[in-house]
Amino acid sequence: MYKKYVYFFSKDFTEGKKELKDLLGGKGANLAEMSNLGLPIPPGFTITSDVCDWFYKNNGNYPEGLKKEVQDKLEKLEELMGKKLGNSNDPLLVSVRSGAAVSMPGMMDSILNLGLNDKSAEGLAKCSNNQRYAYDSYRRFIQMFGDVVLGVERDKFEDALNDQKIKKGVKDDVGLDVEDFKQILAKFKEIIKTETGEDFPQDPKVQLWKAIDAVFGSWNNDRAIKYREINNIKGLLGTAVNVQSMVYGNLGETSGTGVAFTRDASTGENIFYGEYLMNAQGEDVVAGIRTPKQVEELRKQNPEIYEELLSIRDRLEKHYRDMQDIEFTIEDGKLFILQTRNGKRTAFAAIKIALDMVEEGLISKREAVMRISPESLDQLLHPKIDPNEKYKVIAKGLPASPGAAVGKIVFSADKAEKMASKGEKVILVRKETSPEDIGGMNVAQGILTATGGMTSHAAVVARGMGKCCIAGCGDLVIKSNNNCEIGEKSFIEGDYITLDGTKGEVIDGRLKLVIPETSGDFQKFMEFVNEERTMGVRTNADTPQDSLIARKFGAEGIGLCRTEHMFFEGERIDAVREMILAEDKDGREKALNKILPMQMNDFIGLFEAMDGYPVTIRLLDPPLHEFLPHKDEELRELSKTMGVSFTQLKEKTESLKEFNPMLGHRGCRLAITFPEIAVMQTEAIIKAALTVKNKGIKVFPEIMIPLTGIEKEFEFLKEVVDDRAEAIFKQENDRVDYKVGTMIEIPRACLIADKIAKKAEFFSFGTNDLTQMTFGFSRDDAGVFLSDYIEKRVLPNDPFQKLDITGVGKLIEIGINKGRKTRPDLKVGICGEHGGEPSSVEFCYNVGMNYVSCSPYRVPIAHLAAAQAKIKKEEIE
Amino acid sequence: MYKKYVYFFSKDFTEGKKELKDLLGGKGANLAEMSNLGLPIPPGFTITSDVCDWFYKNNGNYPEGLKKEVQDKLEKLEELMGKKLGNSNDPLLVSVRSGAAVSMPGMMDSILNLGLNDKSAEGLAKCSNNQRYAYDSYRRFIQMFGDVVLGVERDKFEDALNDQKIKKGVKDDVGLDVEDFKQILAKFKEIIKTETGEDFPQDPKVQLWKAIDAVFGSWNNDRAIKYREINNIKGLLGTAVNVQSMVYGNLGETSGTGVAFTRDASTGENIFYGEYLMNAQGEDVVAGIRTPKQVEELRKQNPEIYEELLSIRDRLEKHYRDMQDIEFTIEDGKLFILQTRNGKRTAFAAIKIALDMVEEGLISKREAVMRISPESLDQLLHPKIDPNEKYKVIAKGLPASPGAAVGKIVFSADKAEKMASKGEKVILVRKETSPEDIGGMNVAQGILTATGGMTSHAAVVARGMGKCCIAGCGDLVIKSNNNCEIGEKSFIEGDYITLDGTKGEVIDGRLKLVIPETSGDFQKFMEFVNEERTMGVRTNADTPQDSLIARKFGAEGIGLCRTEHMFFEGERIDAVREMILAEDKDGREKALNKILPMQMNDFIGLFEAMDGYPVTIRLLDPPLHEFLPHKDEELRELSKTMGVSFTQLKEKTESLKEFNPMLGHRGCRLAITFPEIAVMQTEAIIKAALTVKNKGIKVFPEIMIPLTGIEKEFEFLKEVVDDRAEAIFKQENDRVDYKVGTMIEIPRACLIADKIAKKAEFFSFGTNDLTQMTFGFSRDDAGVFLSDYIEKRVLPNDPFQKLDITGVGKLIEIGINKGRKTRPDLKVGICGEHGGEPSSVEFCYNVGMNYVSCSPYRVPIAHLAAAQAKIKKEEIE
Repeated sequence: MYKKYVYFFSKDFTEGKKELKDLLGGKGANLAEMSNLGLPIPPGFTITSDVCDWFYKNNGNYPEGLKKEVQDKLEKLEELMGKKLGNSNDPLLVSVRSGAAVSMPGMMDSILNLGLNDKSAEGLAKCSNNQRYAYDSYRRFIQMFGDVVLGVERDKFEDALNDQKIKKGVKDDVGLDVEDFKQILAKFKEIIKTETGEDFPQDPKVQLWKAIDAVFGSWNNDRAIKYREINNIKGLLGTAVNVQSMVYGNLGETSGTGVAFTRDASTGENIFYGEYLMNAQGEDVVAGIRTPKQVEELRKQNPEIYEELLSIRDRLEKHYRDMQDIEFTIEDGKLFILQTRNGKRTAFAAIKIALDMVEEGLISKREAVMRISPESLDQLLHPKIDPNEKYKVIAKGLPASPGAAVGKIVFSADKAEKMASKGEKVILVRKETSPEDIGGMNVAQGILTATGGMTSHAAVVARGMGKCCIAGCGDLVIKSNNNCEIGEKSFIEGDYITLDGTKGEVIDGRLKLVIPETSGDFQKFMEFVNEERTMGVRTNADTPQDSLIARKFGAEGIGLCRTEHMFFEGERIDAVREMILAEDKDGREKALNKILPMQMNDFIGLFEAMDGYPVTIRLLDPPLHEFLPHKDEELRELSKTMGVSFTQLKEKTESLKEFNPMLGHRGCRLAITFPEIAVMQTEAIIKAALTVKNKGIKVFPEIMIPLTGIEKEFEFLKEVVDDRAEAIFKQENDRVDYKVGTMIEIPRACLIADKIAKKAEFFSFGTNDLTQMTFGFSRDDAGVFLSDYIEKRVLPNDPFQKLDITGVGKLIEIGINKGRKTRPDLKVGICGEHGGEPSSVEFCYNVGMNYVSCSPYRVPIAHLAAAQAKIKKEEIE
Repeated sequence: MYKKYVYFFSKDFTEGKKELKDLLGGKGANLAEMSNLGLPIPPGFTITSDVCDWFYKNNGNYPEGLKKEVQDKLEKLEELMGKKLGNSNDPLLVSVRSGAAVSMPGMMDSILNLGLNDKSAEGLAKCSNNQRYAYDSYRRFIQMFGDVVLGVERDKFEDALNDQKIKKGVKDDVGLDVEDFKQILAKFKEIIKTETGEDFPQDPKVQLWKAIDAVFGSWNNDRAIKYREINNIKGLLGTAVNVQSMVYGNLGETSGTGVAFTRDASTGENIFYGEYLMNAQGEDVVAGIRTPKQVEELRKQNPEIYEELLSIRDRLEKHYRDMQDIEFTIEDGKLFILQTRNGKRTAFAAIKIALDMVEEGLISKREAVMRISPESLDQLLHPKIDPNEKYKVIAKGLPASPGAAVGKIVFSADKAEKMASKGEKVILVRKETSPEDIGGMNVAQGILTATGGMTSHAAVVARGMGKCCIAGCGDLVIKSNNNCEIGEKSFIEGDYITLDGTKGEVIDGRLKLVIPETSGDFQKFMEFVNEERTMGVRTNADTPQDSLIARKFGAEGIGLCRTEHMFFEGERIDAVREMILAEDKDGREKALNKILPMQMNDFIGLFEAMDGYPVTIRLLDPPLHEFLPHKDEELRELSKTMGVSFTQLKEKTESLKEFNPMLGHRGCRLAITFPEIAVMQTEAIIKAALTVKNKGIKVFPEIMIPLTGIEKEFEFLKEVVDDRAEAIFKQENDRVDYKVGTMIEIPRACLIADKIAKKAEFFSFGTNDLTQMTFGFSRDDAGVFLSDYIEKRVLPNDPFQKLDITGVGKLIEIGINKGRKTRPDLKVGICGEHGGEPSSVEFCYNVGMNYVSCSPYRVPIAHLAAAQAKIKKEEIE
């Protein structure tokens, strides 16, 4: 059977359609599709990717019959256009472009203006009534053909062009006239003869076939191969080749060119919006040399064309069911559409457009939900710098936590707290932050650090707090405790700066901020989202304040409350240190008893804020040395306030030092050595729960054991917790339901999850630590090589940002499957930072988690990602 | 159908056999077995474990018919013995003992001398002609019965006994006479009456049933439950109860008791060996109050009994096909065997016995191989303290590396090298060791450290070197660089000490050491082993010297050569530091070029030593900061020798500091940042291989990439290695075969092993790091809680010693299966320290590894473990 290799497209006769993308490539299929729609597309034909495959399997030859088929289609095209390819009077010119099924922008070759030669250039000059234009086009064609098709070094042509300019004494091409171009053309031809040993081909057919050869050949050039490798593009046959008649917007005042959006890309309003220029080429509109006109004006200037455009706008939107970004050209009063594609838009506009299209009956609610990128919602949830402000960036760092902040510089957490208590807005500026700075970070508007990466302490805590943060700002140098340099400039305490955490930019002085409105549209959109969503979304929150923000954003409980942050506040830290320094269990219990009522109040606050929802509280996790200062001077200070000798303090801190604290004495290991800590925390949780229950609040405490890796660790601590809880119930003659479960964050825990699930009532995957241990990467140290890894494509992304589905994800799957084998109704969630990252949320949905938990400001993002995951999965099934 | 509950055993009528162990328990089945053999066993009967099961399922009641069955068997026993239970003239006395299918020594209850009461005690006195003995037995019986059966506190009886001694003014029981015992008996009865409200039961039948109740009851006492839990004993019905007639070795000069081994337990010689005492009880032989006689003397004293014993010895060995440890009693000229079991023996004896038994046709070669515990071989391979030496231990530490060593104390590695170069034997004594001490450790006889655990640097390196080491010796305090205290005593440089690394003991002064001969027997045994073994055994060795030792022990190649140790030697460290401090790649390459010829020579030495065998060389692994000193004074020193400013050095060391170096910039991550290191090492390996090849040596280099966790890491470095190798082959116009593979030591590597195996030609599991990351344990820090974990039974053993099969093992299995899926002939080994630990070696065999690799001195142990694993698996299949 004869196989068809060439597909024609034109208004009246089109052989392809968008479903043939694999065969015709994305561009070819789309040209066919638009032609089928009856849109005015410059006609042409597509040689299939099958031919490319044949070409490579047969040493650059073509299948039998192809030449004839191309010739037939070319004749058809000539007939349709009423012009002959390269004809000396009114030549048909064509473009020859690549186009694979998957877009590979800029990777393969294109040739424009094909068909020009000494004679047809003359013809073009006549027809266009523009000699200069015709010869400039010709020399551009030779240059492009020489470079792309014949493999002559591009510089040789550029040099010849420059020589001419120097000779003429002008700077730009604009200064060259027809005669200059004729001289340049002669030189170009000479170059080609010298470099290739052959004359530049005057025969348009020869040009065409050489161009086709070159485009197919470019499928396997180095950069295209590399691009496919990097982007993991596999299974394609090759590229298709599109031969399309050229149209011109610069043939005089009845010609023109423009770009338009079918709706306003910035507000989402349903109005036709765009710009155009008469007697111009596409580049002119974007280049900004001439000022384009609003497309509205076309209504007056050429009402027919405008009406035609409006009607095309409608048809395109109805057909593609999305806002379109259109390129058009008017050639001598005739409208051509060159391209249409889904238009880029702001998050704000995206929501409005999606909602409007639902109203208009164009798309379903589900489709509306799928239209919004979850990450884009982030723009809507944080303050930002007023777009009207003009400013200069004095330094850049990592965009560690989004939003913007304005305030006075302070250099210590203490000072931050003092100034904030007087109502002043401060920015905490430090080399790096540590857990002791929590109080200051909490009251600051934003945080700026000199060192540390996207997952440094400052970055993680700030994101958790939904607070703007720039980390690792190399241009920040702390000179003293009252002075720093940022970029070129010196600052002292009290000086104002502005941070843009979304971009990682530091600005001198105070800028105006605006809080993007989460308008009615946002609310309405989130309702659509929640109609689809089935997986729960909780929040990681340690304070009632954060909890309330999270609930406002739709959080359905707390998935992770880190109790250690509470240990740093105010006078508690003294009691915590007293506990660490105690000689024996009695001493520790005495100190813990001081913390107990404070912790109880913390939990009361959380339970009240989360009335009706579960609250997962993790028992103390960090190694004890994190609670002690490390510098001698600080230790001396502490020795005075605690009435303990400096030597004793020093010895204690030395003895607690660890080579690899990440893998040291922390998590449940602490509680096995010192069960009294778990006992105190259980007491605080259970008593708080009983207290709020009696105020009529619905409370569902979930006690979470951190860092389990061995089933007996969990069993041991569950018994400690249960024993204490039962004792309190007995004593108070009252009880509440509570659950005891565990973080799964040690690789081994996934491998023995069946054993752990025998006793554990829920699992919460702690993917921060699980990623560290599965990769053997220390978050604090990996910065040195991780950026290098991503740059060299050893890793596709930072696994601390996007969950590594191949490795870490595999362990999670093993963990869930094993866990549910022994306990089919095991509740499973995630509480690492991945819980708010869309691709990770999708993974969590796909492996059957019950919920994800993320920082308050990412709750809507997680909602949307969860809804989309569900829809995607249903569509596959 | 009526179920049989009671099994009789006696010389002439026995109902059980050893195969009924589940029903009769170990003891009951063995008593039956020996009776069947016709051995003179005191007759009795066993109540089955079925009854125990019934007892617990029916609230402590017994199945119908049991009482009658016991009564029948008791009557049979009385008839056989010609005595009645508790008869007032010549009473039959019995013991009532527990005995489950799995031995639970000391966990359940036993009662001896049952049947004594006021009257039968009198009868016993008459028969034995020994009043004191009879009444002492009676009071012992009441005491035991009161404690075990009636639940009276043991102290009450002890107090009464003491009161009597005080009253009498004597210290020991020996000072008490018949009248004293009669008074004590009265008091004991009073105690029982007061405590239980009832009289001590005089009726022997009542005594019997109460004792049976008590033994069944003891199956579920707390300590028995705990014991089964800890030892993971599951699926047993319960305990059986053995009622056996008592025999006495203390009825006069025609009675006696003894213990004997069927062969010499210390040398293995095939001679009957043992001790006995006439007119004595079993305890007297062991207690050491009277000096027992050699069993040889019995030949003169009672030739008939001696001959009978000899004949029993033969029958037992033939029946049990192993050397036996026998307990016997002569009651009034009649021999009884009370117990036989496989005898404990030295490793030396074990080998001789096994070989002899093969000669004698008693066991097969395979059985001989199974008879020796692999760990026990360790005794044969290291020097030890002459058993004739008498000495006092002045301090104890961890037995970190076995063997013994004598030498002069030195406090620094430098000094060790200096003194050793003069031919002096030194012991390196340090707080802890670090990689900089390698040179000194290498020349020292042994190493003693104050801190660090079984897996500290000192311990790991010493074991690798097969050198005696005591680590974590808390009683060692380094006072200055010329003085330390060990225990109570002060030492200075040059003082002699002796270390016993097998026991962890430090001894003042010089003791004589002996090197246990690995005699012809050892060689012959290892031949048997190697006939069975199929899995390969390689060694971890970094020097030709270690390689030669390992080959002597049978190593079949090097499984791990750590190149970093080579970086510390002599002047190389200067070049290494120069490389680290270099500003750019050129600087690094310049420094690396200085190291290249030295590394090349190292490899030539290794290849020569391993002629004909593969040598796996791991590229540089540790983080670079390990090669720089850390203290300011050392840095100042270095800044002088290197001509680099102190500040610059300090900054460099600061910038290389890591929070968690274990998870930091090391392994292949280093080589991705600085490929020039891998290039230099490849060059050294390939050039060395070409050099030795031209000397006629068979060389199989295997280049190993450490710490792969991502397939692209491996691909990147394999390309670096291959490119360099090919360039050298071209340049030298010669080539060798080599392989490129990887360590699998990151959890993620196991999960993506299929991807890694596409390019990797071999896997070597680095189970030290894999264990660290799978558990999230830092070896250096886990000491704080790991011992606690093992004590509290959170973990059954230290997973750094015995491979954790449940967790880490699961990952290994995943890794092997995935790896072999893409590359079916993938060569897989292990090179962590587990490679020399028998249970881990068995696991490696079971999951299909091609080889294990271990330190030179453990090679024979691995051989034996591998052979046993194969036999075990075949026996299961």
